[in-house]
Amino acid sequence: MSGDASKQTSNIGRRRAAALGDGRVEYLGRRRAIVQAASDVFKERGFRATTLGHIAEALGVDRASLYYYYSSKEEIFHEIVKDTVQINIAAAEAIRDADLPAPAKLRRLIEDMMRSYGEHYPVLYVLIQENLNHVAPKHSEWAREMKRINRAYESVVIEIVQTGMDEGSLRATAPAWLVAYGIIGIVGWTNRWFNPDETAVGADEIGAAFADMVLDGVVNSGVDGDTAAR
Amino acid sequence: MSGDASKQTSNIGRRRAAALGDGRVEYLGRRRAIVQAASDVFKERGFRATTLGHIAEALGVDRASLYYYYSSKEEIFHEIVKDTVQINIAAAEAIRDADLPAPAKLRRLIEDMMRSYGEHYPVLYVLIQENLNHVAPKHSEWAREMKRINRAYESVVIEIVQTGMDEGSLRATAPAWLVAYGIIGIVGWTNRWFNPDETAVGADEIGAAFADMVLDGVVNSGVDGDTAAR
Repeated sequence: MSGDASKQTSNIGRRRAAALGDGRVEYLGRRRAIVQAASDVFKERGFRATTLGHIAEALGVDRASLYYYYSSKEEIFHEIVKDTVQINIAAAEAIRDADLPAPAKLRRLIEDMMRSYGEHYPVLYVLIQENLNHVAPKHSEWAREMKRINRAYESVVIEIVQTGMDEGSLRATAPAWLVAYGIIGIVGWTNRWFNPDETAVGADEIGAAFADMVLDGVVNSGVDGDTAAR
Repeated sequence: MSGDASKQTSNIGRRRAAALGDGRVEYLGRRRAIVQAASDVFKERGFRATTLGHIAEALGVDRASLYYYYSSKEEIFHEIVKDTVQINIAAAEAIRDADLPAPAKLRRLIEDMMRSYGEHYPVLYVLIQENLNHVAPKHSEWAREMKRINRAYESVVIEIVQTGMDEGSLRATAPAWLVAYGIIGIVGWTNRWFNPDETAVGADEIGAAFADMVLDGVVNSGVDGDTAAR
């Protein structure tokens, strides 16, 4: 980058920071619109292949004017992910606090997780699939915040399981965190094979099947094959 | 790379190919020893941070003599992974062909998978965590072979589930492949958090807990919370 270009970029950076500080509705609304357009571009091209140029093109503006709103595709992506993950946590917390027995909460949670993956495909999967290091430096503020947010989500799941074990509606055959990790895993692993546009079954069907598996197990209890063979 | 260095490398390449073609026991034995030493280095440093220099150092030889046996760390890594994955498939096939009811087969399979992850940590996890593209070009022969091997493993799990559904020992509430993917997911996801040197519970305990979860579900069937809330 030449000295001039670098100076120009940092001028834009200052103007962006000032505009964000002002917090004018028009400026923030424009950022919102950029995030929404970018979300579609990421979905179509994938995170790595997307450039700011592609996003500018989708909005019908030039790259330079995009810089007034966002410094990089990473910054836009972070905003998309943060929004989505925060919606998920709020949903999980609402389930945790609902007046339901733990098994029913788990069913809702599993079905909600799958539905959210399907609806926000592939934003959440980009996050799961990409090593965080590619999307943000390992010790960046964003990486730390994502870690914190993921922990927060895990904690809600663990709390639901623990409450169920305490109240006796769930079997306490393993530590609550281990059962919670198993549940998160069965759903999270779908990033390896699930694509709402291609997979033969939908997110709803997968969620219901996994909820059945986790809650009641795969064994047909009419037949005593498992116990007999232990 | 200078012309001389490049010529030297390609000379070594020809000598390597010739030695492999000869298949002398001594040469192959030396390759085996390199693979074993490299396995430890990968475990300690991770795949990305490991260089051929590190592997040479662990063997007490110089890098140049290593080139007579392997062209790159990728080539060594491929051999480690292939060995491990093939052992896993053979184990899964033996379980499939055993004279046991399907639930007992699933329990063994889940416990075996976890044990294998623990024993071969982190070789299998490097494979799961690294995007295959980083370890091998997407359309390389090795990438294709790994895909084929992964499919073969999945098929065995699906066959076990399908047989159980057919014989009535497993509930046929979802397609067999979906249940199989759920089972593979619950175990595979452990690459996110399991480290045999650090995690409070061992691979055996995790495998047993996950087998319990998958086979019998988490619901304490004495309490009818789930059904009541549906």
